[in-house]
Amino acid sequence: MKTVSTAKVHGGVQGVYTHASESCACDMTFAVFTPPQAENGPVPVLWYLSGLTCTHANVMDKGEYRRMAAELGLMIICPDTSPRGETIPDEKDNWQFGSGAGFYVDATQAPYAQNYRMYSYITQELPELIGANFPADMSRQAIFGHSMGGHGALTIALKNPERFRSCSAFAPIAQPSTAGWSQPALEKYLGPDEKDWRAYDATLLIRDGHRFPEFLVDQGTADGFLDEGLRPWLLEEACREAGISLTLHMRDGYDHSYNFISTFMDDHLKWHAKRLK
Amino acid sequence: MKTVSTAKVHGGVQGVYTHASESCACDMTFAVFTPPQAENGPVPVLWYLSGLTCTHANVMDKGEYRRMAAELGLMIICPDTSPRGETIPDEKDNWQFGSGAGFYVDATQAPYAQNYRMYSYITQELPELIGANFPADMSRQAIFGHSMGGHGALTIALKNPERFRSCSAFAPIAQPSTAGWSQPALEKYLGPDEKDWRAYDATLLIRDGHRFPEFLVDQGTADGFLDEGLRPWLLEEACREAGISLTLHMRDGYDHSYNFISTFMDDHLKWHAKRLK
Repeated sequence: MKTVSTAKVHGGVQGVYTHASESCACDMTFAVFTPPQAENGPVPVLWYLSGLTCTHANVMDKGEYRRMAAELGLMIICPDTSPRGETIPDEKDNWQFGSGAGFYVDATQAPYAQNYRMYSYITQELPELIGANFPADMSRQAIFGHSMGGHGALTIALKNPERFRSCSAFAPIAQPSTAGWSQPALEKYLGPDEKDWRAYDATLLIRDGHRFPEFLVDQGTADGFLDEGLRPWLLEEACREAGISLTLHMRDGYDHSYNFISTFMDDHLKWHAKRLK
Repeated sequence: MKTVSTAKVHGGVQGVYTHASESCACDMTFAVFTPPQAENGPVPVLWYLSGLTCTHANVMDKGEYRRMAAELGLMIICPDTSPRGETIPDEKDNWQFGSGAGFYVDATQAPYAQNYRMYSYITQELPELIGANFPADMSRQAIFGHSMGGHGALTIALKNPERFRSCSAFAPIAQPSTAGWSQPALEKYLGPDEKDWRAYDATLLIRDGHRFPEFLVDQGTADGFLDEGLRPWLLEEACREAGISLTLHMRDGYDHSYNFISTFMDDHLKWHAKRLK
């Protein structure tokens, strides 16, 4: 692991790091905010998964999470959203696939299966690296994210309920296997058999019996992707049928951007902190 | 005036606008955050002047001012730092002069005098535009900024003490006429006679009799520009001799970046709000 940069901010340290990832067979970059409380011992860990087109840096620049994370004593991990590099198969002009669009799956199809293994990266490789190199209390983890990453958080929590104490999402894609901006990516990463997509679709994981105690979701009503791409009512329906507690806030006039995320960031951080303490 | 974008954020509206500027003889872009309180009538106005290399957008993305400005009911205006465009004389490889480096002066030297008129732009043209188009209470204005823009705020307040109720700065250049990264710019904008620079140098304005009731300044101790470029002790000395109240916080371990600015943004907003109410 190499340190790219560190800076003091809101009493803690915002760092950016790279390492040679085995899962993705390339160098991967990630950001870690270490709160001031870490000087006195390991602190709980909150994972933030970003959306389409983002790197680790977007939420670091625009998410406004550090002030409250420093107050609550939370370590915030912001991974990249896909493998990257000249040797990584990609579709340069397609923002919904390839670089910036890993969808947090382990691809099974050539030529993507060698690098696009973001599920293993986020659930196995990166946690091991964090546990070994940062003052992180890995017995207290939570996860959240935005859009593609909000969905990533839901699926990862549903598949690893013993690991995460809480899970929330900003404007998550509720059912990627039937949404126009995600279904083609699942097909390219996982092959044409729709059965193979179910392990990476939050609503279908719930229908297939996966459970998590509760979710918090915020969604802007002025979000241009609401009706075609995000459709929180599908998550609402799946949760209701499964008896999963879902708190869904429809936020009047908010869009899909970091303006929306930063506005409700404090709420989500406090919600997670309560469950991590 | 044209609206480039607006978005709801922290209960208010972050907008970006362009207009054909007479002062700068080119199109200029600026950002305005309108807090929710503006629905009930005009709100006080706080000007934020950015530093070298920045546009209106950097502090908008990374400054973390909106949550507290919405709470306090402050309108935040973030202008650009220079004229821009293909027809504007510039030194492409020089980040300390030309585009992104207007130094808030009215240039007198060819070929810069036609466009580099940021002092007139910030003190006359843009306030008129804001007063005419936004729910701004122009009888309650304050000003702050960072680095080159922190210095711009100090000089503009010293030259217009009747207009601004308060003035603060993050890591301001204290004496640009003798600092290596600013002296060459003053010479190119204002000519070789050092007497002509005094009107745009905060410490020399104070020595020449200009006054402002009090300043708040925050400065990081790990700021790489501290000793050669910023030198807050020169401002401290000038204020002490002139009987101007200066609150100077040296912030342990903070650098020159938006990590530093965002950390102390709330403090400055609250300080201004107290004086604007």
